[in-house]
Amino acid sequence: MALPKQSEDFPAWYQEVVRGADLAENSLARGTMVIKPYGFAIWEGIQRAIDDRIKATGHQNLYFPLFIPASLLEKEAEHVEGFAPEVAVVTHAGGEKLEEPLVIRPTSETIIWDAYARWVQSWRDLPLLYNQWCNVVRWEMRPRLFLRTTEFLWQEGHTAHETEGEALAEARRILFEVYRDAVERVLAIPVRVGRKSPSQRFPGAVETYCMEALMRDRKALQAGTSHYLGQNFAKAYGVRYLDRAGHLQYAYATSWGVSARLVGGLIMAHGDDRGLRLPPALAPYQAVIVPIYQSEDQRSRVTEACAKLVADLTHAGPDGLRVKVDDRQEHRPGYKFNEWEIRGVPIRIEVGPRDLDAEQVTVVRRDSGTREGRPISGLGETVARLLSGIQETLLAQAETFLEEHTFHPTSYAEMRAVLTDPGGFAITAWCGRQECEDRVKADTKATIRYLPMEPAPPNAPCIVCGMPAVDEAAWAQAY
Amino acid sequence: MALPKQSEDFPAWYQEVVRGADLAENSLARGTMVIKPYGFAIWEGIQRAIDDRIKATGHQNLYFPLFIPASLLEKEAEHVEGFAPEVAVVTHAGGEKLEEPLVIRPTSETIIWDAYARWVQSWRDLPLLYNQWCNVVRWEMRPRLFLRTTEFLWQEGHTAHETEGEALAEARRILFEVYRDAVERVLAIPVRVGRKSPSQRFPGAVETYCMEALMRDRKALQAGTSHYLGQNFAKAYGVRYLDRAGHLQYAYATSWGVSARLVGGLIMAHGDDRGLRLPPALAPYQAVIVPIYQSEDQRSRVTEACAKLVADLTHAGPDGLRVKVDDRQEHRPGYKFNEWEIRGVPIRIEVGPRDLDAEQVTVVRRDSGTREGRPISGLGETVARLLSGIQETLLAQAETFLEEHTFHPTSYAEMRAVLTDPGGFAITAWCGRQECEDRVKADTKATIRYLPMEPAPPNAPCIVCGMPAVDEAAWAQAY
Repeated sequence: MALPKQSEDFPAWYQEVVRGADLAENSLARGTMVIKPYGFAIWEGIQRAIDDRIKATGHQNLYFPLFIPASLLEKEAEHVEGFAPEVAVVTHAGGEKLEEPLVIRPTSETIIWDAYARWVQSWRDLPLLYNQWCNVVRWEMRPRLFLRTTEFLWQEGHTAHETEGEALAEARRILFEVYRDAVERVLAIPVRVGRKSPSQRFPGAVETYCMEALMRDRKALQAGTSHYLGQNFAKAYGVRYLDRAGHLQYAYATSWGVSARLVGGLIMAHGDDRGLRLPPALAPYQAVIVPIYQSEDQRSRVTEACAKLVADLTHAGPDGLRVKVDDRQEHRPGYKFNEWEIRGVPIRIEVGPRDLDAEQVTVVRRDSGTREGRPISGLGETVARLLSGIQETLLAQAETFLEEHTFHPTSYAEMRAVLTDPGGFAITAWCGRQECEDRVKADTKATIRYLPMEPAPPNAPCIVCGMPAVDEAAWAQAY
Repeated sequence: MALPKQSEDFPAWYQEVVRGADLAENSLARGTMVIKPYGFAIWEGIQRAIDDRIKATGHQNLYFPLFIPASLLEKEAEHVEGFAPEVAVVTHAGGEKLEEPLVIRPTSETIIWDAYARWVQSWRDLPLLYNQWCNVVRWEMRPRLFLRTTEFLWQEGHTAHETEGEALAEARRILFEVYRDAVERVLAIPVRVGRKSPSQRFPGAVETYCMEALMRDRKALQAGTSHYLGQNFAKAYGVRYLDRAGHLQYAYATSWGVSARLVGGLIMAHGDDRGLRLPPALAPYQAVIVPIYQSEDQRSRVTEACAKLVADLTHAGPDGLRVKVDDRQEHRPGYKFNEWEIRGVPIRIEVGPRDLDAEQVTVVRRDSGTREGRPISGLGETVARLLSGIQETLLAQAETFLEEHTFHPTSYAEMRAVLTDPGGFAITAWCGRQECEDRVKADTKATIRYLPMEPAPPNAPCIVCGMPAVDEAAWAQAY
């Protein structure tokens, strides 16, 4: 199967990789998707990486319901304004019309803070450091597999704190430590972190922190967000506690989430014209063994050798490797090579009679295409070492790509040019006014992706309007 | 907090244990619940036990959408008849009325078999061995925390096979090996397995296999089911494949599930008048250390000793132990003892100055209440050994209880008596007619829980009507 070239039609390439690698497909209800086993195994790997880190920083998982009474959603004004247009509503159940419609959660701040009002009485009850893995529903007008679907899988953390300082530290720790570490080390995707501009903030947030990654088409992808919500939800839902001095105070809130959209990011950050390139830390199969034979005699000899290799590889490295023998007889080796390339398996091991005569196998790296004979003896450790190298290479390549597509234009004309072609991030001084954001969007389709955490003092005027700058901003076209 | 006695008011006892152990609470929408962190950690343990076994038997996880177009549900006649009265329906989304209402999945056979029609062409595509973890919604008239909720968490496996024999073997393997092994070894709950009578079968199934456990109030709890669906769904959704001889055939189906109801089963199978008794394999904390001191001097000495014990216990046994120090200063030791008893922590370790003088600690088993001094040296291994013993004891006690409440009445009068008081399972010959099932239910509230897999040849007449028996049946009152 030949894929469209990334350089010619990136959206078509994406769609064909999702299909060809058997990751997902559209389902019947508008904007919904089936995540197929190979795609789901990648998501399970991402979940494990995030969940381990969430727990290691003292958070616990719990589960809140899918259904939110419509009246509850309406208590936080900005929040309902942001989400009301996107919600799906249950009006009938058990054969009857409901007295009050139920909204399917688009996110769970409202139902969770309603419960926190019962759970929090004293400063001793704080902090609450909770997270849930669940499905949420937001009606999407332009759905796209993994990136924007009506129903999507995610985790959402919701914490309550005594002080503003503690809540701010929490919101930042999650983004800068938990999420960033998982995405860079496990997904091998370098991210830029910062704050959102007011127009891009989560509805109801005081500050939204975000991480942004750069895809191979030089568009940015928001890979995760963490919100400092101040006392907005505490006030809307009446979450007060007796502080250490015996006074009633409203609690401070954060919420934060990453979703299965990260699978889309993984595809677009590392994929090439031959298909997916999976980081070994997440690959459902880290190595695939393809037996090669012409006769029955060769077949039994090669099959036996493959079985021994699986035993060796399954126990190699600190945790063993995930290995598969592709012994399908209805397909020729070339077909299998192609398929496992599209599916992004980091290492392919070809085992034929001539290899065995030389007491070696042929090892092909998916990242570089390098093809080399390697001795059978000690192959497990060889492959474990190669996999570490591939993980590092993918991250390093993505870092280089990100660097090469980060621009510091000095005029608006130059900014417009780089944002359109080649694309990437343009970092400039900005006056802080939405007018200028709107103008850039109209001219280039780019938006402010993040405001750096420690901006260089903006000694230049706003790149758009020339007025005094108050911030730095990183602009890009985005998913 | 004093709990109601099990013997006096079992439902009140259950409700208070769920509350006192901080497992769950009702949420706002009718019949929905919040699973709180301690309850969710138990469910995560159950999930891990089931998921590991599902994967070890060659199944893969995937994810199908929450929404099923209403028309799709209607294609399998018995299935829609069974579920239509219970579904919740989305009629509006994105601010508009939907052209076709969307049903929230009550179970996913329909949407999955619709996809299988695209995925299956040839015998080479079979079997499909897939599973998903998700939420489903069934409108419940009499909701009860964990046991019957409008939304509930579960896994549902859906497999497709070439032959009837293979599908039957799959349905049985899941129940008799995967589920039973997890429930007996990890939850320490012994189960009886068998077939459901036709009236209790899953809507659309040819045969339903089930496992039934006995709760402390001598009512049965259905702990998991596995269905052989024949070709019903393949025919309804057009899932045909070219067989090895080149003929088009309908595929054979199974589906199977267990849910977070198992947490309710865990509470009611092992709990006593002091609260939960958790099997160590699932306990979020396997041991809790309670420091005891009167003065500041004592406090620092005891605190230091506790820290050392945690380090020792965290690394004890093959995988380390899950340990918590309860160092809350606002509560006295007695309060803590009571709380951790309600919460069912298998082992409590009391550490006071006198203990330390004797180079020992006081170890209290939750299962038996045994209280003994144990040397600090080697405490990790001591506790690991005790935990194994507690796991075995809980299973053995539940097995004894199950045996003691399994009756073989020889007359209908005797059957009525044992089913009502003390309650438990009555195993009898049965004519196979629903009339007799209905009569028993009217007289005793009991239903047929299972038909044993290898029934003794029924050489007795039906215990209800005296007509020739065709089967054995196990009757009980049930949740």
